[in-house]
Amino acid sequence: MVKNRELFPLVSVDIALFSVVEERLKVLLVKRAQEPEVGQWALPGGVLKPHLDNSLEATARRVLADKVAIDLPHLQEVKTYSGPDRDPRGWSIAVLFYALLPLDKTDAVVRNKIEAVAWMDVVSPKRRLAFDHSDQLELAIQKLRAKVAADVLPLHLLPERFTLSQLQKVVEAILGHPLDKSSFRRRLKSSEDIIETDEFVRGAQRPAQVFRARQDFSF
Amino acid sequence: MVKNRELFPLVSVDIALFSVVEERLKVLLVKRAQEPEVGQWALPGGVLKPHLDNSLEATARRVLADKVAIDLPHLQEVKTYSGPDRDPRGWSIAVLFYALLPLDKTDAVVRNKIEAVAWMDVVSPKRRLAFDHSDQLELAIQKLRAKVAADVLPLHLLPERFTLSQLQKVVEAILGHPLDKSSFRRRLKSSEDIIETDEFVRGAQRPAQVFRARQDFSF
Repeated sequence: MVKNRELFPLVSVDIALFSVVEERLKVLLVKRAQEPEVGQWALPGGVLKPHLDNSLEATARRVLADKVAIDLPHLQEVKTYSGPDRDPRGWSIAVLFYALLPLDKTDAVVRNKIEAVAWMDVVSPKRRLAFDHSDQLELAIQKLRAKVAADVLPLHLLPERFTLSQLQKVVEAILGHPLDKSSFRRRLKSSEDIIETDEFVRGAQRPAQVFRARQDFSF
Repeated sequence: MVKNRELFPLVSVDIALFSVVEERLKVLLVKRAQEPEVGQWALPGGVLKPHLDNSLEATARRVLADKVAIDLPHLQEVKTYSGPDRDPRGWSIAVLFYALLPLDKTDAVVRNKIEAVAWMDVVSPKRRLAFDHSDQLELAIQKLRAKVAADVLPLHLLPERFTLSQLQKVVEAILGHPLDKSSFRRRLKSSEDIIETDEFVRGAQRPAQVFRARQDFSF
């Protein structure tokens, strides 16, 4: 076995699963139930099983289904972390993905939980994470922010039907600062990714129109 | 051994090494000397050797040093390719990097060659590449173009000292279309990454000033 471990690295995936809770960007953490780093909080992750998985993305989907009982459409690869020292079990590779969960699904994740899970604030994180997961999380946030800063709408984080105020709050939660409402609305007008519906919901002052995402919107 | 192959995937790296030859963006190809796909052209690549490499980036550096006798400062990870069917030897993972070689070093690579190598035009490629390397190349080009389109200067492709016309030609080679000279010059004025020298070289009409890259310029 030692010989195999020297020849073949341990291959796993880690997932930074983001959502928005109480208008703040959060990431899902799992408390490690096994050594190494038992009891530490970590990004959900798991080992590649070549006989089960058709790709590393499939590994990530399987891990999320196993650990938090959710099936997600959107996964984005961020970077690989590799080397002899990042895991005490030996030379290892972790492929980091980020994923986005609609904000109306965050309670279900905690309800369905199989292991101890928690939504952690990403702006002021209070926990040191296991392995190199603090670094991984930082890079995943950076990639997500860069995409949203480049005017891509994070529609994966919204419920099926949403108002423009909800959308603005999600964008603000990711960027970490408030946006000017009228220039944000102007930006949205040129987007082909959101579609008006006939519905209206009661708003702060007047009824707010309800929108939905175009199928196959770009992200 | 069969059992190991099922449990442990084959892990390798592939590198899209770009440079500019005769004002056109080129990528370095290596003719495969071994099965599988012997005789086919491929991106340079090689298998992770955990006892030699401290990371997958180190694998990529070692492979380039072995195959084309070059030592490169700049490597950028693009994406992983994985699955049971992409390599006939079994479940495999390839981590794709791109790298940039200064245009005054392209002859040296061919001179130093250990295997059969060629610089292929990326705009009108004539060859089908081994494995999924045609897809890999396409994505690497896309990533490089997106970076340059977002106003990052590809200074890794230039000699130590260069003129602004040389820089413009390199940017044009990457983007695949000509740029307006005066607006390109205005853009350069706001860049902190290039530094004037006292040197001038003979230009088409009048002497052209020579520039160099700031140390640790961003890319």
